[in-house]
Amino acid sequence: MQGELGGRPRPATTGLLTADQSGVRRQNLAAVLVQLRRTGGRSRAGVAVDTGLNKATVSSLVTELLARGLVREEGTLQGATGRPGRVLVVDDTDFVALGAVIDVEYVSVLALNLRGEALTERRVGLDTVGLDPVAVLTRLAAAVGEVLDPLVDRGAVPVGLTLAVPGVVDPASGVVVEAPNLGWHDTAVLDPLRDLLAAAGSPLGTRSAPLDLDNEANLAAVAELDVRRTAGTRDLLLVTGATGVGGGIVSGGRLLRGGRGFAGELGHMQVDPAGRLCRCGRVGCWETVVGLGALLDVAAASEDPVRDPSVDVVERLAVLRARAVAGDADTLRALDRVGDGLVRGCASLVNLLDPDVVVLGGYFAALGPWFADRLERDLPGQVFAPRAGLRVEPSTLGFSAAVRGGALRTTRRLFTDPTLVPVRRPARPLGELAGATA
Amino acid sequence: MQGELGGRPRPATTGLLTADQSGVRRQNLAAVLVQLRRTGGRSRAGVAVDTGLNKATVSSLVTELLARGLVREEGTLQGATGRPGRVLVVDDTDFVALGAVIDVEYVSVLALNLRGEALTERRVGLDTVGLDPVAVLTRLAAAVGEVLDPLVDRGAVPVGLTLAVPGVVDPASGVVVEAPNLGWHDTAVLDPLRDLLAAAGSPLGTRSAPLDLDNEANLAAVAELDVRRTAGTRDLLLVTGATGVGGGIVSGGRLLRGGRGFAGELGHMQVDPAGRLCRCGRVGCWETVVGLGALLDVAAASEDPVRDPSVDVVERLAVLRARAVAGDADTLRALDRVGDGLVRGCASLVNLLDPDVVVLGGYFAALGPWFADRLERDLPGQVFAPRAGLRVEPSTLGFSAAVRGGALRTTRRLFTDPTLVPVRRPARPLGELAGATA
Repeated sequence: MQGELGGRPRPATTGLLTADQSGVRRQNLAAVLVQLRRTGGRSRAGVAVDTGLNKATVSSLVTELLARGLVREEGTLQGATGRPGRVLVVDDTDFVALGAVIDVEYVSVLALNLRGEALTERRVGLDTVGLDPVAVLTRLAAAVGEVLDPLVDRGAVPVGLTLAVPGVVDPASGVVVEAPNLGWHDTAVLDPLRDLLAAAGSPLGTRSAPLDLDNEANLAAVAELDVRRTAGTRDLLLVTGATGVGGGIVSGGRLLRGGRGFAGELGHMQVDPAGRLCRCGRVGCWETVVGLGALLDVAAASEDPVRDPSVDVVERLAVLRARAVAGDADTLRALDRVGDGLVRGCASLVNLLDPDVVVLGGYFAALGPWFADRLERDLPGQVFAPRAGLRVEPSTLGFSAAVRGGALRTTRRLFTDPTLVPVRRPARPLGELAGATA
Repeated sequence: MQGELGGRPRPATTGLLTADQSGVRRQNLAAVLVQLRRTGGRSRAGVAVDTGLNKATVSSLVTELLARGLVREEGTLQGATGRPGRVLVVDDTDFVALGAVIDVEYVSVLALNLRGEALTERRVGLDTVGLDPVAVLTRLAAAVGEVLDPLVDRGAVPVGLTLAVPGVVDPASGVVVEAPNLGWHDTAVLDPLRDLLAAAGSPLGTRSAPLDLDNEANLAAVAELDVRRTAGTRDLLLVTGATGVGGGIVSGGRLLRGGRGFAGELGHMQVDPAGRLCRCGRVGCWETVVGLGALLDVAAASEDPVRDPSVDVVERLAVLRARAVAGDADTLRALDRVGDGLVRGCASLVNLLDPDVVVLGGYFAALGPWFADRLERDLPGQVFAPRAGLRVEPSTLGFSAAVRGGALRTTRRLFTDPTLVPVRRPARPLGELAGATA
């Protein structure tokens, strides 16, 4: 997953490349677009200097980007050689990138523009565990329409959608391989979702519309990395979840996905061979020590409404937070016990991964002040290597991190393949575009 | 640590580059050298096509590579345009890259040629824990001389040396930050080693000779990845050690180093909060469950010579292996107990990292048949995601993995910076080289 940090697509030099010509052209379109996003207004000649591509190639590429509506011309610029050139800027006004999440207690959809600014977010409480996957996807497709339709009516062009699911997924086939907290196993999601969107007349219902699938914590980590981009963070560990506990590992600016994309299942790290039975069927998983269930078992009696899964988890966490502030003994004891488990598990993870920052997401962020303080105090002493500079930060994105990471992933697809959006305003005959070479 | 898999240095295109001109030239020298290593014999014109660099630049770069003795001319080649060109090949005959290891029970030195073929290996049993660091480094410097001097006498040019140490290191300062199994803490090693080499008149004793330092398990992982290069392995977990347990994580073909280079301390993952005290001062570290000490505690009574640290660990492991083959009950019980701990710890690591292959190194490899069979049988059932294809492989490099990885790292430094070797046979006045631009 190169470019998770917004890495720079390099222009293709034909000699080193084995890709076909259309691949070369896509790569060069991307290089020009990314360069323009970075530098702001530039002439065609300036883009040629920036990218190392020759002027005729740049001219042909810019023509295509103009036709796709990704670039627009804005006034003229006096070149160094004295010849004025039209100023090119990225035209990010018309495009929307969608992220979506299916979680244990809700589905949600977020639309971002290409600058990463949120346009619309829709979150629908839903007891997904009690429902058939098709019923969940039907509700999700409806939420996509509720977010997208008004934007399309105003002229927006959807770039695609990336769906986040709490479990192990196979992006290539669009199948959820294993999501025990949803009760899903080898469940196809992208094909049915596409069919539901098509039935509703959504522009994302076509065969060619890019729908993607990834693990929820991975996408949340993408969003957390994006937030810290300007701080230069390149090694980040996200610990997130509520009932289930998961994580996203960013190493050297890249998401660590593993050989099959199954990496990051840190909730199923065994921390106690004499521990509790986990819903995955094994014993002593970290999730059984630090998950929301473990906290509630200490914090609240069985009839306490804070344990009622039909109440939105955000509301229930607000109640717990209020109790902690008020000094409720059971709540503080629960926070202390889970905090201890967090310290021990995070110490193992820091020993393994050596992140610059541990980000607490999901329910850990909702109770962030207690957990982050505890970790900042106790973690350095539990870590093998001296870790004076290790930061622990509660997420500021909370339960929106994954849906935001999904939308960012969609955005980045466009910046690696600008041909994902259709040619809308051909400035010249289309034949010229198709015939142009890289 | 880009290029751990031998990644391709790309020729620099000036427009995209902020590095200074000498950096650009180094990058282009590397691109030409790597390209020649990949393609075999090529003319200057062919190299220009391969790299996308213009012919005048290629000609200047080749002149410098010839002068440094890294490339030689071999006959002529009929070009596509009809003009014959001299055939260029990488001249890897004269160079030696060194790796060295300081471990708990020995120091060792290995010389490789640029093709990765071992020229000389020297392993010296030494109770490093009982010795002052300077005494250990003195013995190591002597071993470097024993390996290098005869090669230099035959005309070899040393490229550099990479030292592996079982602990957390700071490569920039050449300091071992924390190596509890050696008893070293904030111990400078590269500067004293350089001084010792200088005192012995070694060509590696100069200020400019590249001496590097890295963690032993990291370098062992580099060697294990190199062995599996042709198999296309890109996600590898090495579990290695003897008394201490460490690891190397390769993700997407790159060594996972973490924010400060401290990643991979998997021996200090806490696997049992009620476990044994570890020499790191904490409780229940994986090392206390699967390290050689844990095995010996079950396998052998306290007076058993197999526990005598003054006997070479390789010999002692051979004794244990023979006992296991003979069906000795205590030995088999110990292998079973450690095997169980290996399965549980590796399951957590596979959940986190999703490698294609788990490589058992060090003492685990010496008892490989027992441990690998156990893991292949029990690991899939303990891992969260379906892992039908997960491979478990005892290392075939054994205790030579780290020293080999060190020498490979040294080799790769040369292929990213060919100016590390001196100009030896200037075909043209040196001024021309210095004045040439990229």
